[in-house]
Amino acid sequence: MSGTLYGLGVGPGDPDLLTLKAHRLITRAGTIAYPAPDHGESFARAIVARHIPEGAREIPIVIPMRTERFPAQDVYDAAATEIATALEAGEDVVVLCEGDPFFYGSFMYLHARLAERFVVEIVPGVSSLGAVTAAARLPLIARQDVLTVLPATLPDAVLEERLAGTDAAAIMKIGRHLPRLRALLERLGMAERAVYVSHASLPQQVTCPLAQAPEVAPYFSMIVVPGKDAHV
Amino acid sequence: MSGTLYGLGVGPGDPDLLTLKAHRLITRAGTIAYPAPDHGESFARAIVARHIPEGAREIPIVIPMRTERFPAQDVYDAAATEIATALEAGEDVVVLCEGDPFFYGSFMYLHARLAERFVVEIVPGVSSLGAVTAAARLPLIARQDVLTVLPATLPDAVLEERLAGTDAAAIMKIGRHLPRLRALLERLGMAERAVYVSHASLPQQVTCPLAQAPEVAPYFSMIVVPGKDAHV
Repeated sequence: MSGTLYGLGVGPGDPDLLTLKAHRLITRAGTIAYPAPDHGESFARAIVARHIPEGAREIPIVIPMRTERFPAQDVYDAAATEIATALEAGEDVVVLCEGDPFFYGSFMYLHARLAERFVVEIVPGVSSLGAVTAAARLPLIARQDVLTVLPATLPDAVLEERLAGTDAAAIMKIGRHLPRLRALLERLGMAERAVYVSHASLPQQVTCPLAQAPEVAPYFSMIVVPGKDAHV
Repeated sequence: MSGTLYGLGVGPGDPDLLTLKAHRLITRAGTIAYPAPDHGESFARAIVARHIPEGAREIPIVIPMRTERFPAQDVYDAAATEIATALEAGEDVVVLCEGDPFFYGSFMYLHARLAERFVVEIVPGVSSLGAVTAAARLPLIARQDVLTVLPATLPDAVLEERLAGTDAAAIMKIGRHLPRLRALLERLGMAERAVYVSHASLPQQVTCPLAQAPEVAPYFSMIVVPGKDAHV
């Protein structure tokens, strides 16, 4: 009998925001896979490092920096093959994923390759969105509020069309896009309510009004605009 | 010195989806408040019941059924007063909240009344959205996908305007609105991709294509439409 593939959300960064379920699965894991940069530490692994059992087999999925936004399909092909071999041998495989696996999560690339052939269990995690609003102590949506979640990489015209008329907004993965996003939100009259957060839940976390945000933001940053009903 | 007010996300229902941080705060809590119906058990309390210490003081915030959608402001006024008295006496108060506190969470009504006077810490939780997509094993958003989150209680015209042109959608708290939402999604050509989930992460969880959903859905149910990039 084949093993089970676990897509495990490990939360936004604070190791304490791991769920009890993810904690238990990691402490019992025989094989653990995770995305890793070509230089330096895997963020997903670092979040749970203290719980990884001695002797567990680790499968780092090394994503070259240059393809960060459009992950090299061949990297995921190779990782899927290695994981499939373990599953076919009857081993369970735990795949770590920052935040929540199905909310812009890297696990989806493996899911697309393996879900039809193996039993998959998804363990949801605290998303970056929850971490950001908690960090900023910013009620996001209540009652009749509509929330729109957008990647910062979309062109201005698309962002503007989707932002116009929404109550609340979350723009993800800001990076070098900050100046144009600020200009866009000013044009839409949303800049004053907007809050900037980077590295939510981590020691280096920054939260401030958008007007005070740095010109160049890190990749792990977000702009959030609260809804109209969220301050009742 | 006044105590700290903790707004604690306890996740979508599965007690195992509590975070390590929420678990620790509950096991050490002296005073715990939570929303409760006028008849029956508090859902937020039930999720963490096994961790509540003997002798902890409990403050149920009883929300009459008839005002479920527009919570009686006087109920929250009274609860805020009781909690403020405890905080002023130097006690920490932990407020339990289903899902994530700032994602349509009931904690916001207390936050609005107490955040300016007391130190507040928010502990984000696994949201119903993460639980629903995990339950349905449905990758939600990837890469350039835009997600729109909407309460089912909005009028058709507003829902239609916000759904048109989005990649992914999550419609929350379906209840009696299911037939009109199904008709709306059919009109927009989104019905075929749509998935219905109720009671995500709980033993009575149901997931099925929208076409097979029951005519009358429970309050804790959602319709999700995955984004265009989420199956890569």
